[in-house]
This record gives sequence, C-alpha cells and structure tokens, in this order.
Amino acid sequence: MTQIVLEPLRGFRDILPPESRALSRLAEIFTEVAEAYGYREVKPPTLERFQLFAVKSGEEIRRSMYVFKDKAGREVALRPEATASIARIYLKHLRGEPKPLRLYYVVNCFRYEEPQKARYREFWQAGIELLGEPSILGDFEVIRILVKFYERIEMLDHIVLKIGTTKLYRHLFSKYNISEDIQDHILHLMDKDLYNEAINVLLETDSPELADLLEQLWSRARNNIEEAKKIVAKASEEAAGILEEFNKLIKMLREYNNQLRLDVDLAFARGLAYYTGTIFEVKVPGFPVSIAGGGRYDNLIELYGGEKVPGTGFAIGLDRTLAAIQELGLSPKLVYEDKVPIAIIVLDEALAGYAARVQDILAAKSTVTTSMYVSPKLQKILPKLAKQGYRYAVIIGRKEAAEEKVVLRDLLQRRQDIVSLDELSNVEFK
Amino acid sequence: MTQIVLEPLRGFRDILPPESRALSRLAEIFTEVAEAYGYREVKPPTLERFQLFAVKSGEEIRRSMYVFKDKAGREVALRPEATASIARIYLKHLRGEPKPLRLYYVVNCFRYEEPQKARYREFWQAGIELLGEPSILGDFEVIRILVKFYERIEMLDHIVLKIGTTKLYRHLFSKYNISEDIQDHILHLMDKDLYNEAINVLLETDSPELADLLEQLWSRARNNIEEAKKIVAKASEEAAGILEEFNKLIKMLREYNNQLRLDVDLAFARGLAYYTGTIFEVKVPGFPVSIAGGGRYDNLIELYGGEKVPGTGFAIGLDRTLAAIQELGLSPKLVYEDKVPIAIIVLDEALAGYAARVQDILAAKSTVTTSMYVSPKLQKILPKLAKQGYRYAVIIGRKEAAEEKVVLRDLLQRRQDIVSLDELSNVEFK
Repeated sequence: MTQIVLEPLRGFRDILPPESRALSRLAEIFTEVAEAYGYREVKPPTLERFQLFAVKSGEEIRRSMYVFKDKAGREVALRPEATASIARIYLKHLRGEPKPLRLYYVVNCFRYEEPQKARYREFWQAGIELLGEPSILGDFEVIRILVKFYERIEMLDHIVLKIGTTKLYRHLFSKYNISEDIQDHILHLMDKDLYNEAINVLLETDSPELADLLEQLWSRARNNIEEAKKIVAKASEEAAGILEEFNKLIKMLREYNNQLRLDVDLAFARGLAYYTGTIFEVKVPGFPVSIAGGGRYDNLIELYGGEKVPGTGFAIGLDRTLAAIQELGLSPKLVYEDKVPIAIIVLDEALAGYAARVQDILAAKSTVTTSMYVSPKLQKILPKLAKQGYRYAVIIGRKEAAEEKVVLRDLLQRRQDIVSLDELSNVEFK
Repeated sequence: MTQIVLEPLRGFRDILPPESRALSRLAEIFTEVAEAYGYREVKPPTLERFQLFAVKSGEEIRRSMYVFKDKAGREVALRPEATASIARIYLKHLRGEPKPLRLYYVVNCFRYEEPQKARYREFWQAGIELLGEPSILGDFEVIRILVKFYERIEMLDHIVLKIGTTKLYRHLFSKYNISEDIQDHILHLMDKDLYNEAINVLLETDSPELADLLEQLWSRARNNIEEAKKIVAKASEEAAGILEEFNKLIKMLREYNNQLRLDVDLAFARGLAYYTGTIFEVKVPGFPVSIAGGGRYDNLIELYGGEKVPGTGFAIGLDRTLAAIQELGLSPKLVYEDKVPIAIIVLDEALAGYAARVQDILAAKSTVTTSMYVSPKLQKILPKLAKQGYRYAVIIGRKEAAEEKVVLRDLLQRRQDIVSLDELSNVEFK
C-alpha cells in the first residue's frame, strides 16, 4: 500500500459534477456559436517551444509560464494562451487560404500564478481569431460573436463590455520615439492600474510632453471620446482620427444591441503585449476578474516572420464564466441540462442481458439518463434511489423478462404500470 | 522580426479542419453516450504529482512520461492516462457517494514515445470508470457502452473486440508465489508479444511447473476457453472457475450483440500494470494500433491507500479512432457534420449593422454556417465564393437594406430571389 497525496497540485482543481458538465456545455455552446458564424476549429498542441511565447506574450505571462526541458533538451512550455499557437499554425499551414480566415479553438492553458478566487494554474479558454480583416468591421464581428455567446447562456444582462484602444497609444508612443520595449512596459503598467508609474517612465525617458498629454487624457477624458479627441488633436491629428474610428465602432455596437452595457475606457490596457488596436474585456460587476477578453493584433504574424496580416479575436475564460454564473446564482437551462434520471432495477443477475436491451431503448432518448442497479431487494433499494433523485424506476423481474415487459414506476407520484418494450420506447420522459 | 520555428514539436500535431471538428464531434458523441448510460463527468487536472503515476502505471509508461520540476521544486508529470487521477479523485472527494459510481472523462494525455503512425506524444482519451461493481456485470456494462459508441459512429462492422482476462494470471502467479513486481513484468512481456521471454522469467524464478502450464495454455488453448479450463484445472480448480466466469461474460456479449466480432485471446495482456480481471481492446483489422482499451482494476483504490473498491472501465483513443475512420475511408455523418455554408455579402461598409442582423437570423438555424464578406465587387467575389464551396449567397446592398430585404442567391443553381427578413428566417436550408 502506497500512501499517495490526494490533494491536486497547488492551484489545480478536480472538477466534479455538476460543474464538470456545465463547463463542457459552455465549450459546446461556444462551438455552436463559432461554427454558426463561419469559424472553423483548430487544435494546437498543448506543449510548444518556449520561444513561441517568449516573443510577445507580455512580461507577466512570460514570468508565469510552465517551462521545462524535455528529454531531448528542448526548452518547452505549456501554453499560457492560444493566440501565439494560432499565429504559428497560420504561418505553417494556412497562408494560402482565402481571407478573411476565421478560426476558433477550445483549449486548456497554464500559468504559474498565485492561486486566488477564479484564478487557477490550469484554466480553459475558448476563442476565435479573425485573420485578414483590417477594419473595425473585424472588431465589430468578433465582439458581436462574443456578445452572442453571453446572450445564449443568458448572461447578457449581467455583463459589461469594457472597451478601449491600444492603437492610440501605439501611435503616440511612435510619434514620441518610445522604443517598443518601453511601450510594452508602459502598457503593462496601465494594465495593472499603475498610471503614475507609467507617467514616471515617460518622464524618465525624457518625454514630458507625452506624459502631460496622457495625464490630461486619463484625468479628464478617460470615458469621453469627444473630449479625448480634443486633447490628443493638439499633439496629433492622426490620434484624433484613431479616436474617431474607435467612436464609429462604439456606435455600431450600441446600434447592434442596445441591451449590451458598454464601458468605454480610453485608459484601458491589457496584459498581452501583442495588441495594436481595439481591446476589450467582459466584466461582471462585483466579480473579481474579467471573464473574457480580446483585441486586435495587426503585427503578430509579421513579428513571427510572416507577411503583414491583421488579426483580431477574443478568448473566453470558460471556468471564470462558470464561476461568475455560480456567483450570480444563475442556472441557465442550456448550461445545466436537466435530463430525467431513470434507474433500471434488475432483480436477478441472470436477467442482465434483457436489462441491457431495456437500457438501450431508454438511453436512445435524448431527454433521459439511465443507470443500472442489480439487486433482489426491491423494497430496500427503491427509497434509496428516490432519495438520490431518480424520477422513475424501470423494474425487471423474471416474469417481466419472460413477457418482454417492464414495470415502470413513477418514484415521485408512487404509481406504477406494466408496459411492453414498444410502449416503453414511446413514453415521453420530461 | 523574430524567426520562429513553425513546425510543432516532434511528435505533436496541429490539428486542422475538418479533422479538428471531427475529433471534437467524437468527444461530443462519446459524452452523449456516457451521459445516457448514467455516467457523470469529472475533469482531472492535466498536471499531477509524478508519484501518482509512478505507483502502478507500468514500466513502459513510467519511462515515457513527461516529468519535470515545477517552480516550487515539485516533481510533476503530464498525465499519461486518466484512471490514476480518477482513482485519486474518488479517494479525495467521492468516497461517500452511493455505489456503483459511474464517472467519465475526456482528456488530453502525453507520452514521450517515438512518434509513429497514429501514435503521437499528445493524444486524446475519452473513457468511463465504473466503481463498486465487483461482478462480470460491471465488465458487461462498460463493454456494452464501448460497443454502443462504435455503433453510434457507424464503425461497429469494422472493429474487433479483443478480450482476455488478467485474473487468471494474477491467480496463478499468486499460487506459485511470484512477487508482484515479477508478475507485472511478465504481463508487460506478454503485452509486447514476448512470450518466450515471459516463460524464461518463470524458469529463472524457479517456477518450471507454471512455465510448462502457460506454454501449454498459449500453444494449445489460446482462443479456446473450454480447452484452457482443462489445462489449468490440473493446477488449480479456482483457475478453472475464473475461466468459467469469463466464459459467462463472453456468452452475454455474444447474446447482447451478435454483430460484434469478438477475438477471445487468453494470452492477451495490457501495458497498464493495474489490471486484475477482464481486459479488452478495440482493434481495426489492418490498422497498426488498438483504438480503445480497458479492463478491470480491483486493487487500484486500495493500492492508493483507500478501502477495496472494485473498478472497471475503458479509454477510447479519440485521435486513433479518427485515424482509423480516415484509413477505412469512412465519413460518418454524425462525425463529419455537413452544414449548409452561406456567404453574406455586404456591398457597402455602412450596411454592416443591418448585415449583422441578417447574420444573426441565419446563424440561429442549426443547419447552416454563415460567413460575412464586405466587398463592393459582387461579380468578382461570387464565383470565388462558389468555388470555396458556399452553397448560397445572401447579398445586401443599399436598396435591400432600406427595404429590410436581402437577395438570396443559390450558387449551385444560379437562381436568386429577393426575400424579406421574415421569409429568410423561414427558409429551410439543407
């Protein structure tokens, strides 16, 4: 006897019913939506070369990766996110495909972070990538699909879409000759709400004018695109144009779905360093972490050694979304399927073959789940099964088997009938 | 610009459409079957303590595991299979649940092996575990469900279920005082078809009588249970009883489904060291590897420090099953869904809002996939889309949008109609 450790590793989880199935259902619903909107699945490997993620994933993610050497000495990493793999797959296999190219994925990801509420070291992401659509119509499409997913799982009333644009910053940083490393670092600080520190970096790199501009922008026009346009126009007409384009997207989203709550935030940045344009996150007020996020990355393919292919996409945190559903006390029917549980009770082992036929008839119905119990002690097992939540019992004794019949017992109403297999196959359980 | 390596790691794969979706469909169909037969999902973590698998996974698997130290110095492993995790989860969380307990999982697994046809370093397994059912009725149930899965995906005519029993060997080995390590090693050699080497090990451990018995059994009665009973009865009445019980299971399976081809093989062993009873594999004649396998493991829970809980289950190799489908040239409708592809062509960017409404109407239908194209050059894009396989085009110009209509064009028959949104929502595409 070996005493093994029963706890999962720190930060990891054993996901049990009914959460396990609900999580799978979220993935299935996402898949249905993605397929309906013309996206096709790709399955990237879970393990990739570390280098793939080291390039442009952002300093925080780089630090928290599961990196190790395999038996051949390769430096490999468990993926912290999927977009880098999708970009690699595009370059390896899909360059010749007509654009725009629409891809989706459902994957587990890994980050070695301090575990906290709704943050685990292994987590599930479902996302889409739209490649080859440079305009805001691409952003409009991916956000629409994201909204559609939350509508399908009956969460639309509970979410807020926080939205901003990295393009404004990329443009201003370039104009003021800020190096790309410093750009990524400032955006990282903004993502962490460390705005004063971001300003200090600009002052240290001798960009007082830009520091001043951003201070004004963040203090006076963070949520006001028109006001922000006026502030940035003094420094750059192009920056004002970027905000004008961003404003168009916001208007399209408002027109598309007036139930969607938008939180326009021009001081918003995200942790992944590859964003270049529109960025967004799905928040649930009161819930500590965002449950989905995404944005535009127009340079990633080029950065990986390919041609310039604009990209935009999102990733849904499936476990975070489920955690939010639980926190809100929701129980969407689509997610928590409620099938009718039926117990099949076989009074004699010798009847197992007949019972198997009966179970096949019941299991072919999409509305039920069936479980087989072999026990001669009917009166003892019936109350137990009723207590476990079974709605019906199908009882099989020698007499029933000989006549190709079963006893169908309603455990709630405590009534029973003897029915033939034909009749059983026609019963509508619900 | 960074030149990244575009190849996936050796032994890993980028799974692209349509294989990607077909693989997901196999998982979904498995899930439907498992749920219908009363099994409930558990999601174990991908990463576990190395110790969990080291105990009883078998020498070959232990050698080929992805093991590394995490940032805290823990020796961790990417799971090579799921049953060990399920046993741990049972002990940690589910000991109080009524028996029999029915669990299923769909997971990716990892083995550092030499890549070859249909053998990858990351692969997908979908399986069930039935805990607490000691009799052959448990084996009957799990094999029935396995058969049902292959029936659902229209492969029943193409598979052979190879079946044997480890119980006979465990019993004989104990009777002849063979240590458990040597037992596992002999079973490992049998699994590799190294029967002479297995006999030699017995001779080296000074068990000539057992060596002689097994030589007779394997040469004369490998596929004949009645003959085998006579051979082993000389050494052990109990061994003959084990074969009698095994024979009952075979008879039940033959009666249950006379289309199922059985390959009864009493010299059969499997690579996992935890098996104690019935073992089985699904083979496709001509295909180099088994596509599913399983068996009874009555000591695993106890071995992990718990009470004695009999267990039996199987794991389906989802990618191997898909590879076999491809090898056989099958194209099961359930696996390769064929939805009607519809292209939505928006002639003017300004109409994107209206087009989004149209897309939502179409995407709500379960039989179609829709993709949006924004292009003023209708005559140029139409033949391209037809060539890409789109069956219909829904065309939106200023006039159509103003009247809340669309042009619905049949790209195969080259006919088109102007239809209202109401009419569009009632069109049955198939």
